[in-house]
Amino acid sequence: MSGRSMELMEDECIEKIFESKEVPRWQDQLTLRALVVSFMLSILFTFIVMKLNLTTGIVPSLGVSVGLLGFLFVNSWTKILHKSGFLTLPFTRQENTVVQTCVIASAGIAFSGGFGSYLLAMSQVVARQSTSAKNPENIKNPSLSWMIGFLFLTSFVGLFCVLPLRKIMILDFKLIFPSGTATAHLINSFHTPRGAKRAKKQVRFLGKFFSFSFLWGFFQWFFAATETCGFSNFPTFGLKAYQNKFYFDFSATYVGVGMICPYIINVSMLLGAVLSWGIMWPLIEKKEGDWYSAHLSSSSLNGLQGYRVFIAIAMILGDGLYNFIKILSRTLLGLYHQLRSKNISSITGNATTSPPTPALSCDEQRRNHFFLEDAVPTWVAIVGYITIAAISSATIPHIFYQLKWYHIVLLYILAPALAFCNAYGAGLTNWSMAAGYGKLAIFMIGAWAGVSHGGVLAGLAACGVMMNIVSTASDLTQDFKTGYLTLASPRTMFVSQIIGTAMGCVITPCVFWLFYKAFNDLGLSTSPYPAPYALMYRNIAILGVEGVSSLPKHCLTLCWVFFIAALAINLVRDAVGPKRGRFIPMPMAMAIPFYLGGYFAIDMCVGSLILFIWEKIDKAKADAFAPAVASGLICGDGIWALPSSLLGFAGVKPPICMKFLSQKDNARVDGVLSS
Amino acid sequence: MSGRSMELMEDECIEKIFESKEVPRWQDQLTLRALVVSFMLSILFTFIVMKLNLTTGIVPSLGVSVGLLGFLFVNSWTKILHKSGFLTLPFTRQENTVVQTCVIASAGIAFSGGFGSYLLAMSQVVARQSTSAKNPENIKNPSLSWMIGFLFLTSFVGLFCVLPLRKIMILDFKLIFPSGTATAHLINSFHTPRGAKRAKKQVRFLGKFFSFSFLWGFFQWFFAATETCGFSNFPTFGLKAYQNKFYFDFSATYVGVGMICPYIINVSMLLGAVLSWGIMWPLIEKKEGDWYSAHLSSSSLNGLQGYRVFIAIAMILGDGLYNFIKILSRTLLGLYHQLRSKNISSITGNATTSPPTPALSCDEQRRNHFFLEDAVPTWVAIVGYITIAAISSATIPHIFYQLKWYHIVLLYILAPALAFCNAYGAGLTNWSMAAGYGKLAIFMIGAWAGVSHGGVLAGLAACGVMMNIVSTASDLTQDFKTGYLTLASPRTMFVSQIIGTAMGCVITPCVFWLFYKAFNDLGLSTSPYPAPYALMYRNIAILGVEGVSSLPKHCLTLCWVFFIAALAINLVRDAVGPKRGRFIPMPMAMAIPFYLGGYFAIDMCVGSLILFIWEKIDKAKADAFAPAVASGLICGDGIWALPSSLLGFAGVKPPICMKFLSQKDNARVDGVLSS
Repeated sequence: MSGRSMELMEDECIEKIFESKEVPRWQDQLTLRALVVSFMLSILFTFIVMKLNLTTGIVPSLGVSVGLLGFLFVNSWTKILHKSGFLTLPFTRQENTVVQTCVIASAGIAFSGGFGSYLLAMSQVVARQSTSAKNPENIKNPSLSWMIGFLFLTSFVGLFCVLPLRKIMILDFKLIFPSGTATAHLINSFHTPRGAKRAKKQVRFLGKFFSFSFLWGFFQWFFAATETCGFSNFPTFGLKAYQNKFYFDFSATYVGVGMICPYIINVSMLLGAVLSWGIMWPLIEKKEGDWYSAHLSSSSLNGLQGYRVFIAIAMILGDGLYNFIKILSRTLLGLYHQLRSKNISSITGNATTSPPTPALSCDEQRRNHFFLEDAVPTWVAIVGYITIAAISSATIPHIFYQLKWYHIVLLYILAPALAFCNAYGAGLTNWSMAAGYGKLAIFMIGAWAGVSHGGVLAGLAACGVMMNIVSTASDLTQDFKTGYLTLASPRTMFVSQIIGTAMGCVITPCVFWLFYKAFNDLGLSTSPYPAPYALMYRNIAILGVEGVSSLPKHCLTLCWVFFIAALAINLVRDAVGPKRGRFIPMPMAMAIPFYLGGYFAIDMCVGSLILFIWEKIDKAKADAFAPAVASGLICGDGIWALPSSLLGFAGVKPPICMKFLSQKDNARVDGVLSS
Repeated sequence: MSGRSMELMEDECIEKIFESKEVPRWQDQLTLRALVVSFMLSILFTFIVMKLNLTTGIVPSLGVSVGLLGFLFVNSWTKILHKSGFLTLPFTRQENTVVQTCVIASAGIAFSGGFGSYLLAMSQVVARQSTSAKNPENIKNPSLSWMIGFLFLTSFVGLFCVLPLRKIMILDFKLIFPSGTATAHLINSFHTPRGAKRAKKQVRFLGKFFSFSFLWGFFQWFFAATETCGFSNFPTFGLKAYQNKFYFDFSATYVGVGMICPYIINVSMLLGAVLSWGIMWPLIEKKEGDWYSAHLSSSSLNGLQGYRVFIAIAMILGDGLYNFIKILSRTLLGLYHQLRSKNISSITGNATTSPPTPALSCDEQRRNHFFLEDAVPTWVAIVGYITIAAISSATIPHIFYQLKWYHIVLLYILAPALAFCNAYGAGLTNWSMAAGYGKLAIFMIGAWAGVSHGGVLAGLAACGVMMNIVSTASDLTQDFKTGYLTLASPRTMFVSQIIGTAMGCVITPCVFWLFYKAFNDLGLSTSPYPAPYALMYRNIAILGVEGVSSLPKHCLTLCWVFFIAALAINLVRDAVGPKRGRFIPMPMAMAIPFYLGGYFAIDMCVGSLILFIWEKIDKAKADAFAPAVASGLICGDGIWALPSSLLGFAGVKPPICMKFLSQKDNARVDGVLSS
């Protein structure tokens, strides 16, 4: 036993373990086998995401599943060929990451393509279920040709938008990107050379918690006959708290995420949940009939839901804007200093002058080296962005005549800032708020176009343009974090992302087309594929064309209050310095539960609590193995999403509904069941 | 860390820790404060047990709760008096055990008194719900006077019956008596002198798992709005398995019991559950309409339930009988040898010649010494038993004219054998099968008396006589085990049991009377106090008066098969010797799930599994702390029974029902709830 603490001391540096393994040239990281495996996995994951899109609309982070399957496929491929006597390149973790990023780029389009939201919302089936805007100007039924064209025009812009953010997010801000980090740990653990004791131990930890998490997901599945059943709806703190979205939903994924995220993030989220669902929403709810009409559905943006969505967006925008301006001013200041000292060559390298950084660890030294080598130059990003934006602006109006070229130009001007906000938020909290930014676009463009000029359709199309950019921004920055931690070449990753995106633009519409043709009632609430967000998005768009005035009473005021509060909190944090500043909550993290509720914040705080207790008991061990445990939890649950989706796709429903009824409802139900 | 295994080596002997503490004279173990506390606790626990009796009829083992509360009360009493300047005797663990056994003797009557079963089954309210035997000869409504009289006549016999069993069960057989052992560990841990490291560590372990188990019980409570809700009805292995009583019911108590019981017991139980609910009952169920009528309620003894109850009883009787005969023959053989060597003085001491025992541990030496000192002589037991049996036989027919004196004499002749069986079974498995033996009495006496002569009432009264004896036998042998492990004087315990029984005979009918008068609908299925077993017992009695011929087809044959199988298995175990014999299942343990189903066997096997893994990881630590963990789990859940019952008594119902519905039922329920 006494040997244990000794082991923890040795090999502090992960990259030292990998020193014996050469990092291939960037061209050699992208192999044919990687592309073939990526293509196969893309199809598989597109099916999964599409199915999730069209059933509940909630898509978990599949990054780790992709990482694991990518490894298994390429590894088996390599081993089989090797055993058959063929000469093969050794399978490296860089190649693994390339497969990963390619599949994520491709399968990500299944989500950002809006097949369960804005794109389907344009169709007649959904339009019929709405209250207004049923005129032909506001309807466009899906068709394979225009969908592929639209995706090709909008999906590549995001790639170029991410490139300049990459360094800021990962090197300068050192953001966490929990899913990306977990995937990287997974990939690293697979490729660890034998002999490294701690790594082997980490793999064992990861393996144990992976199995646990997977089996726990499997077990949970049996009890979730419908979306309202099962452990994910467990009213842990009572039914009243559950109605206000305070419950522990037994999600291994978010407990793991909580273990990876810093305490302040998780506490901020919980604070946000308490502030909003614990205090504000109940107070606003009391004004029902005064501030907003009492006879609205709970998802109507004219009612309470409006406050939730718009106040959250206001706070996120406040935080994002502050950080955007901060970085921009720092960049400009750095640029100014650089120009004064006539040392133009180092502009891109040291654009953001951060406070004197502490000595880099051996891991960081090696990672930074590879991360900055082979980087795609910033001018490529800028030229690429402007070129594609120009082509899009000229071409998209031919697909949606309701959307004018100047609408699209406006979107492309705003997009980088919002993409920055979204990638920043995902880096902190793992949540991509792409849908939030998409809604913003709906409002802006919809109101501008007006209902008589097909404003609803224009809004939805604008949403598509926006979502594709911001969603790509967060997904691919996660991947770059994985790449950073696995020493993958940024250039190879960029090429791989382009290939992945191109695959996604073709595969995704085809898969959707299959569903669309196979199920005639797709999009109806009675269908097994109700695609709930499609109707929701259409209603948002309808609200949008009526402008800000249609928001519920005082909502705009509150939005301003929280927007300014977000700026103020950030100002205070920067004013008091990093020592005391780390106790000040983060507005970005606080805002997310405003809309979603506190359940995942509670999951994450459980993760924090576990880590806290572990650190109290054995700090060295916790520091060494907590990331492996967290990754195991995230991966196991993530991989379970695959068989679970396949089961769903095969029409196998869970046999049992674990339901939580109040005393009163239970009496009624017992009456029914006994009759 | 390396210090840990060192600590495990020191103080192997628990009694060494207590060496500094003098064991008081037997007279000094029974103090006034102990009696006052016992009286108060008796009232409290009688309320709890009565409430459980009248709601579900399932009464958990409350021994540990009593032990803990007894300690807290007397300890506080002593401390308060001491602080107030009064001279007080120090509070010893022997005194603690005396409180324990007194309260158990008293509160045990709340169960064995049949207020939720045979006694209430005699009343008109219950008779009205039955199909036949509604004539006045078969009805007797409760009244305070005859109930107290009946209890006084029947409750003391058991005490004398236990006395000779005591030594055989605890010293010779070294039976486990899980609840008794857990209580003893608890009491010992409270009284451990400072400075004993391991004991302190054990107390910490016990405390941790006690808290966990208590909080877990508390958490579970919220989700159990009715008896069919909550974790105790969790279909862990699916609904089909749940219907066949295969599920893990999250009972901390039985996981703890599983950790205390030997592996073979738990495996035997699981085997029994698989054999019966997995194979036999489903096969017999297919014969529905052929072997037995298809239109019976599931609790009808004319149907499948009949096979369950009678085959289980047959097997228990087979095992019990084998062991009874084995012991009796050994005793007689020993007696014969003793007489031949003219050494009459050692008859009582060495009546059962067991194989040469291994050297006694220091704990055992000290415990055996105190256990044999101050023992009540066997002749007191025999004289006492015969005297009370004679008085009862003469007097009880005055209360129930339907029960003749020769019925009662027969019962008193059979009772010692059955009491032995029951105490032996409880020692092995913690389950008291008193209800099973009670049903046997119903059948025997009921059939003998006949329906026209009030056979139903005679049967129920006979059940009362039998249950009081066999239930007392198992409860008090558990207590003697506690006494053995805490060095309490057997004489003091006997006196304490007599006092406790006397208290119970008065307190219990009064508490029942309160319930009976407060709730007019007591015993009706619509009442909050439905007392489900009352109707069940009456139906058994009605079946009983029709004799064995009324059993379902082939049931008697099967009973004989399992009776003989039980004898055969025991024969084989004794034939192959202890080394291989320990892999042969125990019929007594196998039989219990025949009737109840496999759920608690699964709980216990989970306990075994935890212990097994723990032993694999760290054998020394597991051996040292597993009993403390198990006791913590049992105690925490046991103590939770108190506030939970008090809540129920105050009419506070759990707010949520966690329900498990099939896909189909769920759809129906959702339809109802949304309307």
